[in-house]
Amino acid sequence: MEKKLSHVTPSGAARMVDISAKNPTVREAIAKATVKMQTSTLELVKSNSLKKGDVLAVARVAGIMAAKKVPDLIPLCHTLNIDSVTIDFKIKKSSIGIIATAVSTGKTGVEMEALTAVSVAALTIYDMCKAAEKGITITDIYLESKTGGKSGTYKRKHLSP
Amino acid sequence: MEKKLSHVTPSGAARMVDISAKNPTVREAIAKATVKMQTSTLELVKSNSLKKGDVLAVARVAGIMAAKKVPDLIPLCHTLNIDSVTIDFKIKKSSIGIIATAVSTGKTGVEMEALTAVSVAALTIYDMCKAAEKGITITDIYLESKTGGKSGTYKRKHLSP
Amino acid sequence: MEKKLSHVTPSGAARMVDISAKNPTVREAIAKATVKMQTSTLELVKSNSLKKGDVLAVARVAGIMAAKKVPDLIPLCHTLNIDSVTIDFKIKKSSIGIIATAVSTGKTGVEMEALTAVSVAALTIYDMCKAAEKGITITDIYLESKTGGKSGTYKRKHLSP
Amino acid sequence: MEKKLSHVTPSGAARMVDISAKNPTVREAIAKATVKMQTSTLELVKSNSLKKGDVLAVARVAGIMAAKKVPDLIPLCHTLNIDSVTIDFKIKKSSIGIIATAVSTGKTGVEMEALTAVSVAALTIYDMCKAAEKGITITDIYLESKTGGKSGTYKRKHLSP
Amino acid sequence: MEKKLSHVTPSGAARMVDISAKNPTVREAIAKATVKMQTSTLELVKSNSLKKGDVLAVARVAGIMAAKKVPDLIPLCHTLNIDSVTIDFKIKKSSIGIIATAVSTGKTGVEMEALTAVSVAALTIYDMCKAAEKGITITDIYLESKTGGKSGTYKRKHLSP
Amino acid sequence: MEKKLSHVTPSGAARMVDISAKNPTVREAIAKATVKMQTSTLELVKSNSLKKGDVLAVARVAGIMAAKKVPDLIPLCHTLNIDSVTIDFKIKKSSIGIIATAVSTGKTGVEMEALTAVSVAALTIYDMCKAAEKGITITDIYLESKTGGKSGTYKRKHLSP
Repeated sequence: MEKKLSHVTPSGAARMVDISAKNPTVREAIAKATVKMQTSTLELVKSNSLKKGDVLAVARVAGIMAAKKVPDLIPLCHTLNIDSVTIDFKIKKSSIGIIATAVSTGKTGVEMEALTAVSVAALTIYDMCKAAEKGITITDIYLESKTGGKSGTYKRKHLSP
Repeated sequence: MEKKLSHVTPSGAARMVDISAKNPTVREAIAKATVKMQTSTLELVKSNSLKKGDVLAVARVAGIMAAKKVPDLIPLCHTLNIDSVTIDFKIKKSSIGIIATAVSTGKTGVEMEALTAVSVAALTIYDMCKAAEKGITITDIYLESKTGGKSGTYKRKHLSP
Repeated sequence: MEKKLSHVTPSGAARMVDISAKNPTVREAIAKATVKMQTSTLELVKSNSLKKGDVLAVARVAGIMAAKKVPDLIPLCHTLNIDSVTIDFKIKKSSIGIIATAVSTGKTGVEMEALTAVSVAALTIYDMCKAAEKGITITDIYLESKTGGKSGTYKRKHLSP
Repeated sequence: MEKKLSHVTPSGAARMVDISAKNPTVREAIAKATVKMQTSTLELVKSNSLKKGDVLAVARVAGIMAAKKVPDLIPLCHTLNIDSVTIDFKIKKSSIGIIATAVSTGKTGVEMEALTAVSVAALTIYDMCKAAEKGITITDIYLESKTGGKSGTYKRKHLSP
Repeated sequence: MEKKLSHVTPSGAARMVDISAKNPTVREAIAKATVKMQTSTLELVKSNSLKKGDVLAVARVAGIMAAKKVPDLIPLCHTLNIDSVTIDFKIKKSSIGIIATAVSTGKTGVEMEALTAVSVAALTIYDMCKAAEKGITITDIYLESKTGGKSGTYKRKHLSP
Repeated sequence: MEKKLSHVTPSGAARMVDISAKNPTVREAIAKATVKMQTSTLELVKSNSLKKGDVLAVARVAGIMAAKKVPDLIPLCHTLNIDSVTIDFKIKKSSIGIIATAVSTGKTGVEMEALTAVSVAALTIYDMCKAAEKGITITDIYLESKTGGKSGTYKRKHLSP
């Protein structure tokens, strides 16, 4: 099967792909990101989390709202009605893992919604911690899996250790 | 010097930091991101680039526009008037490096603008190439340097090889 | 029947409720708000209304547009396609009553659209009259009724005098 | 002194008031709102608040972000750069009090930013509690005080009991 | 058949037309605009186009994104999910022709999406060329054709020369 | 003096021009547009205008709000704080003339704000009248004059009849 870029015309110009002939199906996408920081910075997040949890609560809200802004952020993405977005955090020794699950019933996938949700949640954590550590790094943003749609199920292959 | 989270009150609640007493200065921030993909996918981008360059042109526009949307995306960021944003791409064997430079004259830094610009440019590249490769990974989003403001100059330390 | 918060997970975190399994139905919501002001301020609105009616025309447009911005304003609201919004004003002796009716065909209600429409219309009246009276008060914002959806019809009970 | 509507021309048409000749000063505005609900609904919010506090954390974020969206919501408001927004909640027996403080250095006041912040925070509480009680009422949205600018200090007069 | 304004009530007030009883159909709209400039300015665009084509690539992206912003720009327009937008340019001796095609499956037409796309693409060309020529004129923005929906097919009549 | 495109780098890529070294001055721009329609359609607008004037009131609000959205619409435009926008209409026999005046105190001009204001006001008139006449044409969108800034005063030359 030949690889192709779907968002450009044969002459190379950008376009929004025509999905008018596609049928709506339920689609789900799961994306991940990791925010790496010093253990001492992470302690601040944890200790805030014991109080009112606002760093992660704000990042979660930011990620959910960003999923809804995808058509406004990613130029060739279609507008779609999201059925659900959830964001979870996994706090490790010197990093925070972010997992977003987006669901939609429509003609186009929700990969970009899930990926944008984890990215903006990660950027929000950076913003709220940057006074403590400017060297925080956001890494490993990828699509973990998707289901639904014509191209069917995708599951990222992780290398065994 | 004690590390602190500036965007939360002593009781742990989120707040937008008060910058009314600060003086406006010229500030610059440079951020980087890397989009890793298969060489065959990158060939598609390059070959499109020989035609009209729309994949990277669209990603550049998306990144610049995203820098202007930071107050709308990152909940506790201040609105600020950006003086300049530029985005450059470095195409390597199986990755695209993204560098954004943001400049502002104001009371608060432009780190989030530069970081958001590279993140959204990277997400846009993902979007335009995902039909060819779903496993594309966005990685190493970080602040390379900043100048201006009370906290002065920051330059990321890179480990020597 | 046990009362529950639907927008938080059992562990207390915010989430956008999953509506993928719900069926689309026609839904309507009616909301109200009241803007209380001095009779002399209201005279200014009325006299403007005899000319070009722009105070109330601007408030109406603001309310209609705000209904379309709900997913961007209320963090956990779903994006939905609104079929209709209308806003009416009832001018009394020292207050303006605002009534918004929102209609949508979808999986989730339009209560927040109607409530946001009256709230932003009220804020716009405040804005346009605040040079004349800063003490204007917005009060009694509530859902008058809703129809459609699984939870069916709701009609607010008003206390008899 | 004659009362006038500043946002309409002598012929009655809407306009954005010209502030080009005004000098920037530090301005502050404090606004309040009250969300009335049944004690049993409030118990749900409190109990959630003992876990992760997400209902009020989400409402706080929504209010802060809404303050930044004022020029996009209230048609004739100027764009301005907000220096600070904070939102506090006072939980009583069957209501939640909301207080927002907005600060800006500029040519125009931040009353609408503070009023919009409390309104959208209140609407967000409604949204998160509406599955438990549709009859929740938002009431008493008003400007508590403002300082700065040509018109100087305003302090709302409260009736003595 | 009597001509009527659909977006105003019998008493003259603005409203968003109720489309809840309409059936979704596939709809398409094609709109055009012309940007007139001096031949020497057009040479700059063409010569840029030989390099990376960014003037027209940026205008194309701006037009596509603007089509998605219609509900936020045109007060009484419905939100709708666009299936496709494409923008083409025709470079003549001293003008650039812009053609936008928008497709949607829904209860309301996409005329405003196509018209807004060509208008914002034209404004973007103005913006990128205004340092060279402030007298650039945007002209002849019109609907070329539409299909689908209850009112059926429309094709603009062009006068024969 | 050599003509140049300011928004592209020497290699042809899009950029937001750096204005950090510029001094803020008061700037004004006046733009015009014309909406051509059949006399019978214009009669509907006029007759609506005798009632509540909502067609033109809505178009005016849309134009003013669009001026504030320029950084979000025109990719390489700077965010700026607008001091004032006014929109006037001139009703002729079979056309409506639109004039927008935008004022800002800043480092960059407000031409795009004035041009976008007339364009979106014109598109809104189209939207509100399209049920009566699909062939309405928007034409002659141009910059009438600008003052302030380094490039000084510009006044469009109109051909004498």
